[in-house]
Amino acid sequence: MKEIKVGIVGLGRLGSVHAQNLAFKIPGCKLVAACSLEQKELDWAKDYLKVEYTTTDYKKMVDEADIEAVVIVSSSPEHCWMIEYALDAGKHVFTDKPLGCSLEECKRAEAAVERHPDKIFFLGFMRRYDPSYADAKAQINAGRIGKPYLVKATGLDPEALVESCIKFSKTSGGIFIDAASHDIDLMRWFLGGEVTEVYAAGTNFKHPEFAENGDTETGMAMLKFDNGTVAFLHVGRTAPHGYHTETEIVGTEAHIRVAGVPWKDRVMVYDQYGARQEIVENFPQRFAEAYLLEMVDFIDCIQKDRKPELTVYDGTKATLVTYAITDSFHSGKPVQVQY
Amino acid sequence: MKEIKVGIVGLGRLGSVHAQNLAFKIPGCKLVAACSLEQKELDWAKDYLKVEYTTTDYKKMVDEADIEAVVIVSSSPEHCWMIEYALDAGKHVFTDKPLGCSLEECKRAEAAVERHPDKIFFLGFMRRYDPSYADAKAQINAGRIGKPYLVKATGLDPEALVESCIKFSKTSGGIFIDAASHDIDLMRWFLGGEVTEVYAAGTNFKHPEFAENGDTETGMAMLKFDNGTVAFLHVGRTAPHGYHTETEIVGTEAHIRVAGVPWKDRVMVYDQYGARQEIVENFPQRFAEAYLLEMVDFIDCIQKDRKPELTVYDGTKATLVTYAITDSFHSGKPVQVQY
Amino acid sequence: MKEIKVGIVGLGRLGSVHAQNLAFKIPGCKLVAACSLEQKELDWAKDYLKVEYTTTDYKKMVDEADIEAVVIVSSSPEHCWMIEYALDAGKHVFTDKPLGCSLEECKRAEAAVERHPDKIFFLGFMRRYDPSYADAKAQINAGRIGKPYLVKATGLDPEALVESCIKFSKTSGGIFIDAASHDIDLMRWFLGGEVTEVYAAGTNFKHPEFAENGDTETGMAMLKFDNGTVAFLHVGRTAPHGYHTETEIVGTEAHIRVAGVPWKDRVMVYDQYGARQEIVENFPQRFAEAYLLEMVDFIDCIQKDRKPELTVYDGTKATLVTYAITDSFHSGKPVQVQY
Amino acid sequence: MKEIKVGIVGLGRLGSVHAQNLAFKIPGCKLVAACSLEQKELDWAKDYLKVEYTTTDYKKMVDEADIEAVVIVSSSPEHCWMIEYALDAGKHVFTDKPLGCSLEECKRAEAAVERHPDKIFFLGFMRRYDPSYADAKAQINAGRIGKPYLVKATGLDPEALVESCIKFSKTSGGIFIDAASHDIDLMRWFLGGEVTEVYAAGTNFKHPEFAENGDTETGMAMLKFDNGTVAFLHVGRTAPHGYHTETEIVGTEAHIRVAGVPWKDRVMVYDQYGARQEIVENFPQRFAEAYLLEMVDFIDCIQKDRKPELTVYDGTKATLVTYAITDSFHSGKPVQVQY
Repeated sequence: MKEIKVGIVGLGRLGSVHAQNLAFKIPGCKLVAACSLEQKELDWAKDYLKVEYTTTDYKKMVDEADIEAVVIVSSSPEHCWMIEYALDAGKHVFTDKPLGCSLEECKRAEAAVERHPDKIFFLGFMRRYDPSYADAKAQINAGRIGKPYLVKATGLDPEALVESCIKFSKTSGGIFIDAASHDIDLMRWFLGGEVTEVYAAGTNFKHPEFAENGDTETGMAMLKFDNGTVAFLHVGRTAPHGYHTETEIVGTEAHIRVAGVPWKDRVMVYDQYGARQEIVENFPQRFAEAYLLEMVDFIDCIQKDRKPELTVYDGTKATLVTYAITDSFHSGKPVQVQY
Repeated sequence: MKEIKVGIVGLGRLGSVHAQNLAFKIPGCKLVAACSLEQKELDWAKDYLKVEYTTTDYKKMVDEADIEAVVIVSSSPEHCWMIEYALDAGKHVFTDKPLGCSLEECKRAEAAVERHPDKIFFLGFMRRYDPSYADAKAQINAGRIGKPYLVKATGLDPEALVESCIKFSKTSGGIFIDAASHDIDLMRWFLGGEVTEVYAAGTNFKHPEFAENGDTETGMAMLKFDNGTVAFLHVGRTAPHGYHTETEIVGTEAHIRVAGVPWKDRVMVYDQYGARQEIVENFPQRFAEAYLLEMVDFIDCIQKDRKPELTVYDGTKATLVTYAITDSFHSGKPVQVQY
Repeated sequence: MKEIKVGIVGLGRLGSVHAQNLAFKIPGCKLVAACSLEQKELDWAKDYLKVEYTTTDYKKMVDEADIEAVVIVSSSPEHCWMIEYALDAGKHVFTDKPLGCSLEECKRAEAAVERHPDKIFFLGFMRRYDPSYADAKAQINAGRIGKPYLVKATGLDPEALVESCIKFSKTSGGIFIDAASHDIDLMRWFLGGEVTEVYAAGTNFKHPEFAENGDTETGMAMLKFDNGTVAFLHVGRTAPHGYHTETEIVGTEAHIRVAGVPWKDRVMVYDQYGARQEIVENFPQRFAEAYLLEMVDFIDCIQKDRKPELTVYDGTKATLVTYAITDSFHSGKPVQVQY
Repeated sequence: MKEIKVGIVGLGRLGSVHAQNLAFKIPGCKLVAACSLEQKELDWAKDYLKVEYTTTDYKKMVDEADIEAVVIVSSSPEHCWMIEYALDAGKHVFTDKPLGCSLEECKRAEAAVERHPDKIFFLGFMRRYDPSYADAKAQINAGRIGKPYLVKATGLDPEALVESCIKFSKTSGGIFIDAASHDIDLMRWFLGGEVTEVYAAGTNFKHPEFAENGDTETGMAMLKFDNGTVAFLHVGRTAPHGYHTETEIVGTEAHIRVAGVPWKDRVMVYDQYGARQEIVENFPQRFAEAYLLEMVDFIDCIQKDRKPELTVYDGTKATLVTYAITDSFHSGKPVQVQY
């Protein structure tokens, strides 16, 4: 297999995870270029990751660096034009979620992908690569839970990190758009249908700043699907115990619950607080393996000229649903999802 | 303390549980009368429970038997007139849920209770007496979870007993009316608010007979409360693993989950199926202690002339909400709850 | 079934549990007599339990009270002569563990039981009646774990109650004699063999008072059985988290673990300490149901003239093993068990 | 940091894990040489791992290949002379457990290590690098469990792989020598003391072939330490449910249990078998991360000229204890450990 040369844009919290994976942990690829607006991040890439080419100019990296693939971990509003630019330049593209921040952006990405059917376009809904979610899906595919008809999804950021969430809430588009796209993707994946109508609510009992920013601390929604299935969604940013992502798939022959206790490791402590397990602290810790495995698959897709399971349309659909839920939250009424 | 003499009406599945508790396990009371339409149940009461007075005629029992209290475990449509008759005859009354099958019936019971403020009226939402739910409530009252703002309720009868559910579904009023009142009561109790709007759905992927009977196999709903809190409801009759009643209360400072794994006992088996716990089989097994403790409290209320926490209005409200959910399920639209 | 009239001796911590069960919760019996050295306990029996006959003199109760059965919950050194006296007086006998405090005492009890084959002699190893242990045993009997060949037993009293343990350690005979007989009984029951050799140790790192009293804070032992099976024993009095009784039975086809987490109820709390379950606080809480069920069985044995599974010899054997372990702890060498 | 060039000997089950980690997943190193007796393993190393130098002759690799470090994953009897040869040739050395198969071998390795204090010698007791065991140790070091005084260790290979264990049992030295050295190392690490006396037993109820080979299917032992602490050991090869490594550390202020349920992932299935978690299948799956992290640390030690926590003497001591336990198993008597 030939070695795939990769450039990355974005070296922030998640970007640095991807960059280290690409630099050190994935057979068959080499991280040779990095783009960031922060010079110290570029220095780190040069010194620690041994990246040859660094720049603050994304277009320059795509045009000049000796790369076949681009990994996009920039801020969400930058995703779509960067996808388009890289594909049009003949690069394979991996992009972090969400696909885009509006239907227009998503459509632009879709068109770019359609223009370049020979290029790999890879959407970073990494939860599908988490061994536990993959196990759940494999059992569903093997028929072991019968017909799945209900998903209960919980996605809670930890109270410990709430300050950054509050700051971010001014510009994030709201909790559903910001936090729910992974859950929507899992629901569609597990239930095998498309969302038709959503009904949402939110609460704001701990940090009034969220409401002041036009957002909400916690979001709940019920979703109806075109195949008659249903989902519950509960997203939040103030979990007292840590990072809590939990998903239950209810089927006619079995139920599968992923991470009912989102333990940090295999330790159970028995002390004055009872018998207790500590909780994972944040998403990079919880999904470390998933971030690695999705990137392994991206490189493998390029090497074997194989299309990934996730398509650009999955990105558009998840985005549309999060917008519909946001509308329902604001109006208090059920909202139809328009595709 | 004087011994309270009690008569019971209804000796079916749950009635026989109450009857045995009254006969053998509760200090300060004596079961002296029993009413049932089944002669063999009356024989059992006479022979095994040593009940002195048996009859097939409820009014006769109330009028003639030497009793101070009546325990009503008859079929749901009989509850309200029996409550009224017993109260008007000067008896204390315990009634199983639901209070009534229509707003009219409930109002009739309310009026009877209001006419007899010196009598104990006790509503059998026994889950409040389950040690685990009581523990959850005590922690909430002590402020340990902060402000509770979301309840996720699951109530699933086991697939093993689905045949009787299918039969019953022709006349039960539908799954929400039949199965959800305990959950509604717990939501109101934990969240401290009243339901204002509900939005429901249902699925029917395993036993088409439910849909043929105008009912649904599984019911889901989202509920908004007047204090800004929210609840999810998931009821069903086909849990592959057993009887599954689970409730999570999400608060600003902690979450409490009751029975995430509804184990039968303290046994964990490690074998070819993994590490596994067997599940409780049915509601009498799950709530054996709660049925006993609520009856202990009923007798204690009589002896100490003390009003129970649950009132007749709690019964009316739970009934109204289950009707509203049923309406939403049929119309597909949100429904306001009218009090 | 005729009603069995019962007298009880001992109304302390456990005695009061048995007394209330006999008075209120067991069909087919009536608690009519009570003996205690504490007048206030006798007053309580009279007032609350409605016991007719009370006395501070055990022999008088056996001779004078209108009883068919005696329940012995006195201090351990009193058990054997009380057993003998009651049997010789023609009474059925229930005795709490241990059978006796020496081989001589046990032999005296054995002889009395042998003299009265028509009387029920019932030994209170109540753990056999705990639903979880009974479930484990039923699975073993059904062949579901294959051949059981190893038992790992843990029995820890809570640190919260250590003061009374320290006081008691001067006269209790040591931790193994005091605390291990239930575990020995379970090992024999599950493994189906007799102990041949034991090897013990102890630690004393928290409360030097135990060592000063000639006892030890914590005791460990390994036991070899005549059928080639093995057991580990870990007893202690300083569990930081609560009352911890755990037992694992390892078999060729499955392992069964009872109470790996000795939760108090079905509540899981998610808070700053992680995901946690509170622990049962003491043995009356943990084995409330077992204490009731064994007494139900005692009464049923009398009524049906049926012999219980446990015999007086089970008591002697458990006692002998705890003495052998104590010898090994003191000598540091393996000790053969002499029957 | 300069890149460390590494050669590996042994490309079997565990060797291939190490080789892939070295080739793809560890910053700062390059796998350039491989030695194996199997040509197809060498081909795989060349083709897949891109190893430049391959040979069937260990000495030749050490002498000729351009390497600074050797990773030894050969069969146990080869460990010590290979350690010596590599150190004497000026290479850093990583060796898999056990250090050696006899006291003589271990002493030879010790002498070689002492002759080359400037070289890194790294002993592969990888469990210390498992995040859960490391978490336990960190909590102990932070004083959170008080004084640790008892370790309960369980190490069970799965029944699914028993055939290879039976074959291997003819030459492995017996179950304690073969399987218990990791557990002994953890006990010493957690308890902070040295084993003084051991008392062992074994059972053989499922596969008589083990006994026919002079080995035993299952081994149990109790260990006394020089600081007054104690340990239980249970090793086996027939776990019906999978690979089960569990360790409990009992302290005066808290207990820590690692992997009471050795789940495979975060999935809980609710089906006709109850609520169940699947179990890890084998040690490479269970300790994948530990194998990676120990190798990361080995390379880091070389780069920073830093001594690892584990020393050659830890290897000798673990080996001696497993021999003492084996003696006790054969003699049936306690055996003193001679250092």
